[in-house]
Amino acid sequence: MLTQDIIKKKRDGKGLSKDEIAFLIKNYLSGEMPDYQMAAFLMAVCWRGMSRQETVWLTGELLHSGRTLRTDSLPGKKIDKHSTGGVGDKVSLVLAPLVASMGVRIPMISGRALGHTGGTVDKLESIPGLRTQLSIAEIDKNIRDVGLTIADQTGELVPAEKKLYALRDVTSTVESIPLITASILAKKLAVGLDGLVLDVKTGSGAFMRCIEDACALAQNMVEIADSMHKPTIAVITDMSQPLGRMVGNATEVVEAVETLQGRGPEDLLAVTMELGVHMLRLAGTCSDREDARQQLARALKDGGAMRKFQEMVERQGGDVRSLERFGQRVSKNVREVCSPASGYVTRIDTYQMGLAAVALGAGRRRLGDAVDHSTGYEMLAKLGNTTERGRPLVKVFYRDEASFKEAEGLILDAYEISDEKPAARRLIHKVLRDF
Amino acid sequence: MLTQDIIKKKRDGKGLSKDEIAFLIKNYLSGEMPDYQMAAFLMAVCWRGMSRQETVWLTGELLHSGRTLRTDSLPGKKIDKHSTGGVGDKVSLVLAPLVASMGVRIPMISGRALGHTGGTVDKLESIPGLRTQLSIAEIDKNIRDVGLTIADQTGELVPAEKKLYALRDVTSTVESIPLITASILAKKLAVGLDGLVLDVKTGSGAFMRCIEDACALAQNMVEIADSMHKPTIAVITDMSQPLGRMVGNATEVVEAVETLQGRGPEDLLAVTMELGVHMLRLAGTCSDREDARQQLARALKDGGAMRKFQEMVERQGGDVRSLERFGQRVSKNVREVCSPASGYVTRIDTYQMGLAAVALGAGRRRLGDAVDHSTGYEMLAKLGNTTERGRPLVKVFYRDEASFKEAEGLILDAYEISDEKPAARRLIHKVLRDF
Repeated sequence: MLTQDIIKKKRDGKGLSKDEIAFLIKNYLSGEMPDYQMAAFLMAVCWRGMSRQETVWLTGELLHSGRTLRTDSLPGKKIDKHSTGGVGDKVSLVLAPLVASMGVRIPMISGRALGHTGGTVDKLESIPGLRTQLSIAEIDKNIRDVGLTIADQTGELVPAEKKLYALRDVTSTVESIPLITASILAKKLAVGLDGLVLDVKTGSGAFMRCIEDACALAQNMVEIADSMHKPTIAVITDMSQPLGRMVGNATEVVEAVETLQGRGPEDLLAVTMELGVHMLRLAGTCSDREDARQQLARALKDGGAMRKFQEMVERQGGDVRSLERFGQRVSKNVREVCSPASGYVTRIDTYQMGLAAVALGAGRRRLGDAVDHSTGYEMLAKLGNTTERGRPLVKVFYRDEASFKEAEGLILDAYEISDEKPAARRLIHKVLRDF
Repeated sequence: MLTQDIIKKKRDGKGLSKDEIAFLIKNYLSGEMPDYQMAAFLMAVCWRGMSRQETVWLTGELLHSGRTLRTDSLPGKKIDKHSTGGVGDKVSLVLAPLVASMGVRIPMISGRALGHTGGTVDKLESIPGLRTQLSIAEIDKNIRDVGLTIADQTGELVPAEKKLYALRDVTSTVESIPLITASILAKKLAVGLDGLVLDVKTGSGAFMRCIEDACALAQNMVEIADSMHKPTIAVITDMSQPLGRMVGNATEVVEAVETLQGRGPEDLLAVTMELGVHMLRLAGTCSDREDARQQLARALKDGGAMRKFQEMVERQGGDVRSLERFGQRVSKNVREVCSPASGYVTRIDTYQMGLAAVALGAGRRRLGDAVDHSTGYEMLAKLGNTTERGRPLVKVFYRDEASFKEAEGLILDAYEISDEKPAARRLIHKVLRDF
C-alpha cells in the first residue's frame, strides 16, 4: 500500500477501504506518514468528501488511536453535550453541573478558544487554582466520585485526532463535514458515553453560518453516530448574536454562576434547558419533555446545580470561595462603546464580535497563544433592542488602550442599527431525533 | 498576510493576487512556509484550478526564484523543445543535435525517468563519462561554443520549481494543468529562450491519456506562454505505443544514433521532423513547412546532425568512440516475450510497457532511485502488425530472472492481440499555432 496512491484515490473521488484509512491514521500517528502527505490528503477530503462508511471507519481509527475510558460498571448513564462553538457560549458551565446534579454522569472533554470562538476550558481556568489538564485516572475518579468533570483534551485519549486537528488548523482543512464529524465523535466516544447531545450552532458567529449547512453537519453526525450504535440527538441553535450578555473568560463564569443561581439571561437559559431535556431523555430519567423541564427547573431552583458546580470546582483544585466575588476577577479597565445612531439593533456580525474578544486577549489567534482571563465585554444591546445615538452598546473590560481601540472598531463594525424593527429570530431552529 | 488565509481562499475557489502567489513561493523556498501548508495549497489548486493570470504570476515567481541564463548578445535564436513524456521517447537525442546543426542554439534542461516515463538525462548518462550535471557557467559556455547542451536541472535555475516538484511527486498533486504549465514554462524560460515547441503526448503511455485533456494542457501552455510574450507552438503527438522500437537507456541511445545516421524507425523520424519544422519556424530560418523539411532532411543526410551530437557528447565529457559500438553497452542477458495468440496487435497499454521498463531497472519508481543503463527492450511487433502464437513480440535485455519475469508479465498484459485489423492511428494529432 502506497500513501501517494491512497491520496490519489481520494483526489480522484474514489472511495477508500477500511484498511486504507487505518493505514493512513496509524502511519500518521507513528510519524511514518509525514505532515505534508496528510495535509494533501485532508485537502482532498475537503474536496471530495467521505461516504458515511468511510467516516465511520475514520472515526473508529481516531477513537482507538489511544486509550479509552472504561466506566461501564458504574450506575447511571454517561451522557455528554458537544457544541460546535460560538461567541459567549457558556452553556456547558451551566448545563453540565445542572444535569450532573440529577445523577447523570458527565465526562466532558472540552476545547480551548480558537479563532473567533471561545473555549470552555479557558473559561474554567479563570477560576484560581482550577486544573483542567487531567489524567485519564483523574477523569475516571471524578466521574465516579463527583459524577462530573470538565477537562482539557489529553494526549492519552484520541492522540491521532489531536495531531490531525493541529495540522488541519494550519492548513485550512478544518471546514469539512466528515472531518468535523469524525473529530468530534472520536473525542466524545473515547470517554465511553451512553449518549450524546450535539449543539450545532448556526448564524454569523457559528462555524456553519447558514442553517442548511448546520443541518447537513447535524444530519451527518447523527447518522455516523447511529452507525456506531451511539444514541445521539442534534439541536440546531442560533448564533446570530452572542449567547447571553457576557463574552470573555472570567466574565462568562460570572454569568454562568448567575444562571446557576437562577439569575441568568433568558436566551442562555432557554438553550441550556433544551439541551438538558435531551440529555435526560438519553439518560432515560424523564417520562417526557415536560417532565424533563420540570426536573431541570427544580434542580436549578433548589441550588442542586450550583452545589454540583462548586463540587466540581473544588475537586479540580479551584478556589470555591472566589466564586462569590468573581466579578473582582474581571479587569477594572472599563469603557463603553456607544451607538453611532438611533434605531433598532438589526444585525450583529457575531464573527466580528468574536474577533473583538480575540483583540482584547480573551481568545487566541493560534493554538498555543496565551489567553487573558480578565478581559471581555458585556452586551448592553442585543438584536431587536432599541438604542440611541451615543447610548452604550457594549461595556468593554480591557487591558490596554490599543486593544480597546481594536475591539471598539470591530464592535462598531459588527453592529447594524436601522429604523426597521427586525423580525424575532428563533433560538432553537431544529431538533434531529426529537421526542 | 497569513498563509492559512491564502490556502483558504484557493480552497474556496477564489482568485489569488500576484502578491499572494509571490508570498507563498518566496516563503516556501526560504523554508518559512512548511511543506504541509504547501501540500494543502497544491491539492486546493488541483481542485480549484488557476486562472490564466494566476498561472502567469506563478510561472514568473518560479522562473525568478533562482538565477537565469543571459545570452541575449549571441547571434542565432535560442529555441527549445519540451515533451510531456512517454515511453521510448528519445526524440530530444535526435532533434536537438539536428536543429542545432543548423545554427539554432539549444539550451536544453531535461528530466529524469520517473514512474512509467523515461528521461533524456538518464539516457545520455549511459554514454561513459558524459556529465549532465552542469553549472550555469558550463551551460552558458556550451551554448556559446557548441550551440547545444542537454543538462540535468540544476539547483541554480528555478530552485522553487525543483522543491515544489519533489513535493508534488509525493503528495499526488502532479496532475494539475496550471501546475504542470507553470512548472514546464518556468524551467524552459529560465534559460532565456526566444521560442519553445511543446510536444504534448496523448494515449495510454502519456500523462494526458485522452486527446481532449492533451489539447486542454496544450492550449493552456500556449496561452500562458503568449501572456509571457514567449512564442510557443504545441504539437499533440501519439503515445498509444512506445515511440520507435527501443525502450530503456543505452538501448535508446543506440536507436537515436541510428536515426541520426539515417537508419531510424519511421515514427520516431516523423515526430522529430514535425517538431523540427516548428523549431526552425520559431527561429525564423525557413520560408515554409516544405523548406524546413528539406533543410532538416539535408542536415540528417550529410551527417551534420550526427557530428553535432558527437560534438555535444565530447564537450560534456562523454566517450565519443563508444558510440560506434554502443550496442555493447546493452545487457547480454536477452530473452524474448512471445505472443500468446495469432492475429493483429490491436492495443498496447503503454503505461504498462513503461512499468515493464521500471521493473527491468531502466526507470525509477521514486525520485532518487538508481537506474540501470543496460536494461530495456526492443519491440518486434507494433500496433497493426500481425503476429502468430509463439512468435516473439518483444526482446528483453534484463539483469536478473526475477526482473525479467515481472517485465514479461507486464508486457503480456499490455499487448492485446485480436482478429480485427485496427484502424491506423495518426501520429500527429494536432498543432496549436500551426503555419
